Amino acid sequence: MSTVKPNNDSEAFNRVRIVLVDTTHPGNIGGAARAMKNMGLKQLYLVSPKDFPSDAAVWRAAGAADLLETAVVVETLDEAIGDCKLVVGTSARERRIPWPLLTPREFGDRAYAETQTHDVAVVFGREDRGLTNEELHKCNYHVHIPANPEYSALNLATAVQVLSYEFRMSALNAENGAPVHFDDWDQPPVDTNMVEAYYEHLQKTLERLGFLEPGNPRQTMTRIRRLYNRVRMDEMELNILRGMLTSVQNYIYHTDTKIQQLEENNAKESPKE
Amino acid sequence: MSTVKPNNDSEAFNRVRIVLVDTTHPGNIGGAARAMKNMGLKQLYLVSPKDFPSDAAVWRAAGAADLLETAVVVETLDEAIGDCKLVVGTSARERRIPWPLLTPREFGDRAYAETQTHDVAVVFGREDRGLTNEELHKCNYHVHIPANPEYSALNLATAVQVLSYEFRMSALNAENGAPVHFDDWDQPPVDTNMVEAYYEHLQKTLERLGFLEPGNPRQTMTRIRRLYNRVRMDEMELNILRGMLTSVQNYIYHTDTKIQQLEENNAKESPKE
Repeated sequence: MSTVKPNNDSEAFNRVRIVLVDTTHPGNIGGAARAMKNMGLKQLYLVSPKDFPSDAAVWRAAGAADLLETAVVVETLDEAIGDCKLVVGTSARERRIPWPLLTPREFGDRAYAETQTHDVAVVFGREDRGLTNEELHKCNYHVHIPANPEYSALNLATAVQVLSYEFRMSALNAENGAPVHFDDWDQPPVDTNMVEAYYEHLQKTLERLGFLEPGNPRQTMTRIRRLYNRVRMDEMELNILRGMLTSVQNYIYHTDTKIQQLEENNAKESPKE
Repeated sequence: MSTVKPNNDSEAFNRVRIVLVDTTHPGNIGGAARAMKNMGLKQLYLVSPKDFPSDAAVWRAAGAADLLETAVVVETLDEAIGDCKLVVGTSARERRIPWPLLTPREFGDRAYAETQTHDVAVVFGREDRGLTNEELHKCNYHVHIPANPEYSALNLATAVQVLSYEFRMSALNAENGAPVHFDDWDQPPVDTNMVEAYYEHLQKTLERLGFLEPGNPRQTMTRIRRLYNRVRMDEMELNILRGMLTSVQNYIYHTDTKIQQLEENNAKESPKE
């Protein structure tokens, strides 16, 4: 992997996108903004915040009120992460189907490497419930902040602080510059929108083939997501997968049509007596 | 990830499988055996060696002649790596389609982690030509020993020495024990035999669908291999992929049959006048 000189750092810092989902307490949004600015981060996305804009947010933001001004407010997580090529979700507890997991330090290193070339989203959930399974399954990786098993729920703003800090530490420790992720590769990586569209397409086809029960894809689609989310596909690879799917759909369409025609011919040639 | 105490080391060392493909000079086989034993490795596989057993090998092996006695001689690379769950191939030059690449040190760390639970194959090629593209595409990763661009071809035995040494360094440096790879996962990883069978199955189906030209799959199958080889599938994921493929094949079979029946019915009901 080649490396870039540290003077590209500001670009890297600008490519970290902190995404807060369904935040209940506006004070936490302000605290998160401050934590971000303290570490040199800028991009704040808010998905359906309960109470925003708010004086409470401005107060807790202190010298980072400008981040609140430029924060992007959206209604769905898809809108917040769709154009990102790496999405890391915070996870407080083990899930039934384990997801590729990074420590905060590994997150810092990876995020610093990848923000050399593209936006990286870090997704935080609700104060009481974290992220839903569906939200977590949109991520390439999860990150867990190790904590006291007897009391492991961090305040939202302080969680943002820890991960922002690890990003900054990785930037400072990259003495020879950051490794440039995907630099030795021959195709650009995909973003979340492209992948989500593929999953939709795939699920419909698998239901049509009878491989999945319509409306009840259960664990199979989750495991498929996990496989493809962790492999970090490039655009040509995704195009190949799409092409394979399309050739299956074309086959289905072609044979459905032919069967229909033959059945109509059969009916014509055997009129009822 | 959990870790294991270093006294499991001997098991890890026993799980490294050095695979030499089509070696021309038996002296190199002996030199490789010695390099292995010097670093505590044992498993030697020889794929179609030109001249083996041989006095020249015994002579160069010096105190490692026992490794030559226990070496496994096979005719194909598939036989040598089929039951391995991680296969790393040595690569001397950049290829047109880049493969996930490890430095010797990264190789050492990864191999040491994974040999806690399963065999890891390290594949070396011919003295003059290295490994073929087809052989390289059976690997999860490639490893390249950085060298002088003006003269970069290492002697086979010394290449075995460098990588065996890095394995040993990783073992010694793992002060707190080796991270156990796949330990936080919920399913066991696949081995090469399972994956190769899937690719064969997939290629035939894609040819039947007209997505691939029969006999000329070109770069598409190579890119598919690279995708699935690097994702390190677990057994349930592979079963899901197989299941999807089977449902496509069943659909093709079912519709072929139905179309044939309908065409026969059509012919019966329209006898020539």
